[in-house]
Amino acid sequence: MQEVLTAQDQRDEGPRAAAARFILRPSVQGAIMALIVLNAITLGLETSGRAMAAFGDVLMALDRLFLWIFTIEILARIYAFRGRFFRDPWGIFDLLVIAIAWLPATGPLSVLRALRVLRVLRLISMMPRLRIVVEAMLHAVPGIGAIALLMVILYYVAAVIATKLFADTHPQFFGTIGESMYTLFQIMTLESWSMGIVRPVMEASPQAWLFFIPFILIATFVMLNLFIGVIIESIQTLRKQREEAEALPGLDPAVVMRELRALREEVAALRTTVGPR
Amino acid sequence: MQEVLTAQDQRDEGPRAAAARFILRPSVQGAIMALIVLNAITLGLETSGRAMAAFGDVLMALDRLFLWIFTIEILARIYAFRGRFFRDPWGIFDLLVIAIAWLPATGPLSVLRALRVLRVLRLISMMPRLRIVVEAMLHAVPGIGAIALLMVILYYVAAVIATKLFADTHPQFFGTIGESMYTLFQIMTLESWSMGIVRPVMEASPQAWLFFIPFILIATFVMLNLFIGVIIESIQTLRKQREEAEALPGLDPAVVMRELRALREEVAALRTTVGPR
Amino acid sequence: MQEVLTAQDQRDEGPRAAAARFILRPSVQGAIMALIVLNAITLGLETSGRAMAAFGDVLMALDRLFLWIFTIEILARIYAFRGRFFRDPWGIFDLLVIAIAWLPATGPLSVLRALRVLRVLRLISMMPRLRIVVEAMLHAVPGIGAIALLMVILYYVAAVIATKLFADTHPQFFGTIGESMYTLFQIMTLESWSMGIVRPVMEASPQAWLFFIPFILIATFVMLNLFIGVIIESIQTLRKQREEAEALPGLDPAVVMRELRALREEVAALRTTVGPR
Amino acid sequence: MQEVLTAQDQRDEGPRAAAARFILRPSVQGAIMALIVLNAITLGLETSGRAMAAFGDVLMALDRLFLWIFTIEILARIYAFRGRFFRDPWGIFDLLVIAIAWLPATGPLSVLRALRVLRVLRLISMMPRLRIVVEAMLHAVPGIGAIALLMVILYYVAAVIATKLFADTHPQFFGTIGESMYTLFQIMTLESWSMGIVRPVMEASPQAWLFFIPFILIATFVMLNLFIGVIIESIQTLRKQREEAEALPGLDPAVVMRELRALREEVAALRTTVGPR
Repeated sequence: MQEVLTAQDQRDEGPRAAAARFILRPSVQGAIMALIVLNAITLGLETSGRAMAAFGDVLMALDRLFLWIFTIEILARIYAFRGRFFRDPWGIFDLLVIAIAWLPATGPLSVLRALRVLRVLRLISMMPRLRIVVEAMLHAVPGIGAIALLMVILYYVAAVIATKLFADTHPQFFGTIGESMYTLFQIMTLESWSMGIVRPVMEASPQAWLFFIPFILIATFVMLNLFIGVIIESIQTLRKQREEAEALPGLDPAVVMRELRALREEVAALRTTVGPR
Repeated sequence: MQEVLTAQDQRDEGPRAAAARFILRPSVQGAIMALIVLNAITLGLETSGRAMAAFGDVLMALDRLFLWIFTIEILARIYAFRGRFFRDPWGIFDLLVIAIAWLPATGPLSVLRALRVLRVLRLISMMPRLRIVVEAMLHAVPGIGAIALLMVILYYVAAVIATKLFADTHPQFFGTIGESMYTLFQIMTLESWSMGIVRPVMEASPQAWLFFIPFILIATFVMLNLFIGVIIESIQTLRKQREEAEALPGLDPAVVMRELRALREEVAALRTTVGPR
Repeated sequence: MQEVLTAQDQRDEGPRAAAARFILRPSVQGAIMALIVLNAITLGLETSGRAMAAFGDVLMALDRLFLWIFTIEILARIYAFRGRFFRDPWGIFDLLVIAIAWLPATGPLSVLRALRVLRVLRLISMMPRLRIVVEAMLHAVPGIGAIALLMVILYYVAAVIATKLFADTHPQFFGTIGESMYTLFQIMTLESWSMGIVRPVMEASPQAWLFFIPFILIATFVMLNLFIGVIIESIQTLRKQREEAEALPGLDPAVVMRELRALREEVAALRTTVGPR
Repeated sequence: MQEVLTAQDQRDEGPRAAAARFILRPSVQGAIMALIVLNAITLGLETSGRAMAAFGDVLMALDRLFLWIFTIEILARIYAFRGRFFRDPWGIFDLLVIAIAWLPATGPLSVLRALRVLRVLRLISMMPRLRIVVEAMLHAVPGIGAIALLMVILYYVAAVIATKLFADTHPQFFGTIGESMYTLFQIMTLESWSMGIVRPVMEASPQAWLFFIPFILIATFVMLNLFIGVIIESIQTLRKQREEAEALPGLDPAVVMRELRALREEVAALRTTVGPR
């Protein structure tokens, strides 16, 4: 929640400005955070069969109450800040995690019921220190778009090759392109790649290591490059910001040269003054 | 053990200062370290059934003797240094690992018997080089508080979702929030995540990879960020300290400009002296 | 595809220059890229039994059509750019992935059929951002030649030792030098190294950990060194390029000293002018 | 092999200097390297049952011949360089890997037969580029002595605790301190730590995760710190050497200030010359 009070809001007597001032009051913000934490606890308790048997009705009622409060809060923020609310990505984020809870969670969409806990993530948007960390990580993401696209192309090519070569003998791992991509992701994380996948495959196709070992080397290298690139980039950016703030002014060449030239002119003037005898 | 002798202690004739001088004498320090190493060996031998059968009584008696010596040493340090002892975190640490051994280790607390070996960690507080390494690592910890809190929130949210989605079909992995958190930690370390957990889960819920693969990518990325951030931070801090100590003084702008201005005034004064003819 | 139009090509009226201008027209480049993406999709569909049953003939015909188009494009580029085409490694790369599709893919070479999808990798050579990323990674490779050679020597020595020691008891892991190298690679990736390999081996040779634990420490260390070395090298190179472009000129020592000396000479001349009275 | 020819050796007519010049002749060095590579091949072939059946006698005879040649070469180097040979760690290394082959490899020492292949590592000492890489890695080792010692203390303490807590229920993993250290090493590499070790242990001791999860976090963190510390240290050292060689001289403060003061004295002298009228 980054909507800030403008000078306008401070002076303004209208109901919008009053709403903005009310929402951003520290006590109100603190109350909302406390409710989110409470809601996190009730959502956690809902997963316990015993807790649900004992006081499931109370938990459900509380959850509904919290949802109404959060909904009113979001609506109040939209009313108070209008455009500013929607220009702030954290505003959109807060709106989405609340909206999920209002979708019908029945039939094929019952999975949405589990996603209601995503509203706990609003804690991130309410705590400035967490918001900075997440923004720093996301900030580094565009720089890796190219490597991510490279990764997608490599994965697709490897998945087509693996499906063509091994679908007949090991359909449980490489039956379709989707299954091959999942299996190749597992191989890239090195989980059971040899005992679980490649040794069984090599019993049918003894040369299979010619495909898998280069894949492992390239995929882990590109992935590590991707991760470390992002991490170092963000660490360096943060350090640079800090150092620039602390840097002492160096010897400004322009100032030194101006001083030296002024001095030379002074001497030249002096010489003229003295004149040839 | 960082309590240092002050000038006061050096001169003072009282019993406290004498105790302080005695404890910090290199020979006494060396003897304590030797006793810790000996105690480490006897504690190791206590785990061997054969050694216990042969001379278990001796080992137990030695252990009790060492404990009394360490206790007297701690009490002497508290007597000698008073406030200074308790202001030093290493002092608290030494006190705790000795205190554990005096707790009754019977019934439900019998696990405390195993923790007596923690007193071997006093070697760290007694060797300055180890103390510096540990302090450097701990020094970097506050900087990662935000990422650690982020990690906790992500884990809690993921554990609630996983419990809601998979508790019915795989209670051994996702039965409660606690079990889900343990299983998600295992998945984050990539141990058997696919063959052991996700492939079985996908047999019941074929779309489960939509939850697990983003979780793996986010969790390993945030964790790697956490680890590498701390490591680079501490390496850089250590290098900076070293470089600042070695740095040659640069061209101080203030000194140069003062010299240049003094020179200009000298010339101006000269000009006045010469005066217009 | 890095062949660029020279001033010569721009003016030239001959058919070669006209072909070059035609090939490098953005609309033609875009059409080729669209065809590569389409071909990627048809090659993917070919792995689906259902898709092949429904319209396998169409897919095969399309694939043949795409191959003819790509072949004509490559021939046109060779005709238009001659030497320049073959001096560009990306040109050779494009030629190879197309040539693979023309090799007979029957009998023992049927694996080549699976490699036809490699032509999707041409997307990398057609998108400048991806080309830069790949070139940056390849650029760092020569610097690690020495570590890679070291790795090969270590692997060979370790494989010979492992084969001599464990071939009799565990031929499935260490039967030949080739099998030993594969198993040691698996151990280096830490996949099932203990539960799958070393614990069973230690049942026959209890001292086997004296070989495997140092191998794990050395191999993972050298490998991590290799990977991180390459990654940091390329990140630093990229950052250096950026910083050099942005750097402000510092205080040029030569200019300052020239100015100072000129000033001194001026004063000395003045002194001569004034002369001793 | 770093023994270099001194000016003394170049001029000297004695047999030692002649031997030194002969050994360091590029053709002789090349021949030795070729013999090492050949020996690597014959040692590899000795592991193949078929090759041994077909021409085992030839392989054994060749191996003996190579061993004699390498032994004579080492003796010649000792004769030629005396002290210099033994002061060079690579000389000691070469001597050791040859000496191993002369030890009786029978009975309990038959494992030494497998270690004969270590002489292939002499390739590292003969190729300057590999020698530099290995020396750079070893150079970083002393800096991590403290962390390594910390690791040893942590491991010992953790192994004693694990043995005390889990020896009764899981003697195959934690029966003795040695077995516990091996199992904790396996857990640190994250291999099957949960499915293979901690989940079974938790069936008997449900609170076991309170020991294992902190151990994993601390051990992997300290280990990663150790590895990355060494790697970054050596990369930085290499870069620093390169940059120092390339660095342009900056504006030397001493020179500038000397010039400025000389100038001020000149002006002051001038003023005296002119004198008050």
